[in-house]
Amino acid sequence: MYQVTSRPQPEVPMIHGCFQGKDIVSLDQFSVDDLSILFNVTGKMKQIAVNNEPSRILEGLLVALLFFEPSSRTFSSFAAAVKRLGGQTLEMQNPEAVSSVTKGETFEDTIRVIEAYSNAIILRHRISGAAKQAARAAEDVPVINAGDGNNEHPTQTLLDLYTLYERFGRLDNITGMMAGDALNSRTIHSLLRGLSLFGNNTMYILSPNQLSLSRDEVVSLQDRGLRLIEIHNEREIPHDCDFWYWTRIQKERFSSAEEYQQAQHEIVIATPELLKTYAKKDMILMDPLPRVESVDPAVDADERAVYLRSQIRNGLYTRMALLALVLGRI
Amino acid sequence: MYQVTSRPQPEVPMIHGCFQGKDIVSLDQFSVDDLSILFNVTGKMKQIAVNNEPSRILEGLLVALLFFEPSSRTFSSFAAAVKRLGGQTLEMQNPEAVSSVTKGETFEDTIRVIEAYSNAIILRHRISGAAKQAARAAEDVPVINAGDGNNEHPTQTLLDLYTLYERFGRLDNITGMMAGDALNSRTIHSLLRGLSLFGNNTMYILSPNQLSLSRDEVVSLQDRGLRLIEIHNEREIPHDCDFWYWTRIQKERFSSAEEYQQAQHEIVIATPELLKTYAKKDMILMDPLPRVESVDPAVDADERAVYLRSQIRNGLYTRMALLALVLGRI
Amino acid sequence: MYQVTSRPQPEVPMIHGCFQGKDIVSLDQFSVDDLSILFNVTGKMKQIAVNNEPSRILEGLLVALLFFEPSSRTFSSFAAAVKRLGGQTLEMQNPEAVSSVTKGETFEDTIRVIEAYSNAIILRHRISGAAKQAARAAEDVPVINAGDGNNEHPTQTLLDLYTLYERFGRLDNITGMMAGDALNSRTIHSLLRGLSLFGNNTMYILSPNQLSLSRDEVVSLQDRGLRLIEIHNEREIPHDCDFWYWTRIQKERFSSAEEYQQAQHEIVIATPELLKTYAKKDMILMDPLPRVESVDPAVDADERAVYLRSQIRNGLYTRMALLALVLGRI
Repeated sequence: MYQVTSRPQPEVPMIHGCFQGKDIVSLDQFSVDDLSILFNVTGKMKQIAVNNEPSRILEGLLVALLFFEPSSRTFSSFAAAVKRLGGQTLEMQNPEAVSSVTKGETFEDTIRVIEAYSNAIILRHRISGAAKQAARAAEDVPVINAGDGNNEHPTQTLLDLYTLYERFGRLDNITGMMAGDALNSRTIHSLLRGLSLFGNNTMYILSPNQLSLSRDEVVSLQDRGLRLIEIHNEREIPHDCDFWYWTRIQKERFSSAEEYQQAQHEIVIATPELLKTYAKKDMILMDPLPRVESVDPAVDADERAVYLRSQIRNGLYTRMALLALVLGRI
Repeated sequence: MYQVTSRPQPEVPMIHGCFQGKDIVSLDQFSVDDLSILFNVTGKMKQIAVNNEPSRILEGLLVALLFFEPSSRTFSSFAAAVKRLGGQTLEMQNPEAVSSVTKGETFEDTIRVIEAYSNAIILRHRISGAAKQAARAAEDVPVINAGDGNNEHPTQTLLDLYTLYERFGRLDNITGMMAGDALNSRTIHSLLRGLSLFGNNTMYILSPNQLSLSRDEVVSLQDRGLRLIEIHNEREIPHDCDFWYWTRIQKERFSSAEEYQQAQHEIVIATPELLKTYAKKDMILMDPLPRVESVDPAVDADERAVYLRSQIRNGLYTRMALLALVLGRI
Repeated sequence: MYQVTSRPQPEVPMIHGCFQGKDIVSLDQFSVDDLSILFNVTGKMKQIAVNNEPSRILEGLLVALLFFEPSSRTFSSFAAAVKRLGGQTLEMQNPEAVSSVTKGETFEDTIRVIEAYSNAIILRHRISGAAKQAARAAEDVPVINAGDGNNEHPTQTLLDLYTLYERFGRLDNITGMMAGDALNSRTIHSLLRGLSLFGNNTMYILSPNQLSLSRDEVVSLQDRGLRLIEIHNEREIPHDCDFWYWTRIQKERFSSAEEYQQAQHEIVIATPELLKTYAKKDMILMDPLPRVESVDPAVDADERAVYLRSQIRNGLYTRMALLALVLGRI
């Protein structure tokens, strides 16, 4: 992998080759070398999962899944990752409803109680910054961010990057297109940030004008060395993309039904016709799911559509790898 | 076992002696020979469970329990079956509330995501036909129907048949009585269908007139070789039944409180007096549970009452057997 | 340990050195010798947990967690205890919402169904006496009370006693102070009862006048040989306590907002200043958690504050020990 020099100053410690015991709060903790280590382990995890090998890598360890916000996909993926490796889970979905939180307990106390029973905490929360707050509260066990509000969802980006890496054998010199709600999509922001770690990448951003990347975001990414080209129309789609990354527009973000309908009207959906006209033979079509008015189900049968094939499964494998590394078992 | 010739044309593939990888959607997939295989394995599973033998039969496998409708008994029974065999579960109760379903994801996409993380999906749903729909969506892993609306709940019938088979050593030449809401009870319909696979069985149906089997149902079962005798009054109960199968009337089925009260008034409840007057010494009294105005708790102490003894436990053993067979581990 | 002669007449069988198969409903089942056995095993369990030793002590066993009332801490602690010992759990939180209970099933039937699938039932319920009722219904497997209304929560007291025992090497000749809502706090009542089993203990009770222990309670405890001194003011706190045990006042107990505010005003909170003025160097500060206006978080850094350190962890270790003993695996 090719490394560019510009790098953010993270507020949580960099991994620097040592995953064991580290909180995983932000994608910015990963260097190119860290990703290289992780993806190497991910390949091994894939073998275990595909072959249904009984594994004892996490034997004797308890991983708490503390989901203050529902997310069936992320929850299932992390739970499966722990169990596939022979570990056990402590599962708490919606703990606000079933816990001491209702009696007025602070978030910090809840975290410290759960860490007393477990070897790691996987946290999902609707509030930005909750993962960092939990990481500070948990003195003895690592905290893994499974999405904190609009802030970060690092394992989503890790699986996206792995999907590209597995397909192309590299993460530099890639041309891609991301479509949908570029303004609000956490997955688009984070994947762009991840790709900016590597040299000579070009990304087209296809979105209605009102859902474009913010100017700050564009400047920040260009400063990191990423080539960004914003387009707003199907006819501007280039023919040489290595991948397309489609996202849904999020109804709950709009201030009025009219604005939502306007965006719906302007959004481009990935259809068989669109692929036929603009997509290369050896590209891949990704979607973080759930897909709602993003990718037409008629595309599913196309071999290039990986969202329900390798992409979703890579979420399992990268999380297995991350857990094995953070828990010091590999 | 004795096999009759008339057989339904199932819309899902017959098992034909090969359980591995098969979706289990309907009782109609089972031939007499398939039941024989299943019940043989069930006996072995009973030994494992009764002796608390640590088992590795499902080691390394993850079974998803996807319950779109609450059902604590079926959920617990399947979860226990997986864990008793050394497998692990991915548990999702009420996924509509905690998942991408709320963001507009289709049922098919949800199934395909879950299959990416698991080796089998056990599905409960309130909509008839959901199991078949899931079986079509899941390309890589088997789907087991744990009840889809008023349609089917095949493992309930398998455990009922096994309870009879274990007690009498056969499933032909049996005389039984089924009581309660014959019109609406899925368990009665399905058990009758199962018993019609075997020769020379006679079933009395005891219900208020307005809750009788439909004419279509009667004709269809008689065409399959079952002798059916409908009775509406306690005094018509024969003295030679090998088993009684009692079901509750389902309040939610009635269009008015008056109709429900009328049915309540006409329904016959299994009491110690009723057993004393009409039941053979060596018969068994079954109830699929929960029992509400079906079997009087005063009957519980009677040795012939098997609903809280062998019948409920046979649910565990038949599900263990089915999982071991479908997952190709036995 | 030193044993006093006065002993209550329990309504459930005493343990008398034999834990295997016993229902654990009340603290009153434990003699001094039983506590000695339990605490000895607890020490071994601590080693297993601290070292993350893979354990097979509960291998092949299924423990049902039947929580009719939410309690994330107790739920997590019991679930972790089972899993740390290599057992598996059947988890049912809020079964009233997701089960046959909604169809009108009796509590006894629910218990009997769950016992058919499991090797032990851990029950949490909002109704006093539910644990004893469940113990009577479950004929084949032991029931462990994880809190039934205002009645008992024996494992909370076991962990509190173990925390004192581990720190001081004895449970007699101890001087302590309990603060908060002495009238309503189940944990205070139960710990006082436990300490009354041992000789020469002196307990100060610090509470607003309207939240004092009831006269009946005081008399009953004094009859059992405990020295009780009620105080209502910070300045009455003695300087020689071996431990402080702080509890929150429970808003839901007050008939009006005014009464609650009055109590809030009179309550003493454990602050760094309070410890500096009144606490010995080698005492410990306990809190059953959650803490809400009981212990100031500024105290957390003080080494004497054990609530988020050994006390919470001892909950895990004592429950591991109890399960191993009751299930006959140690």
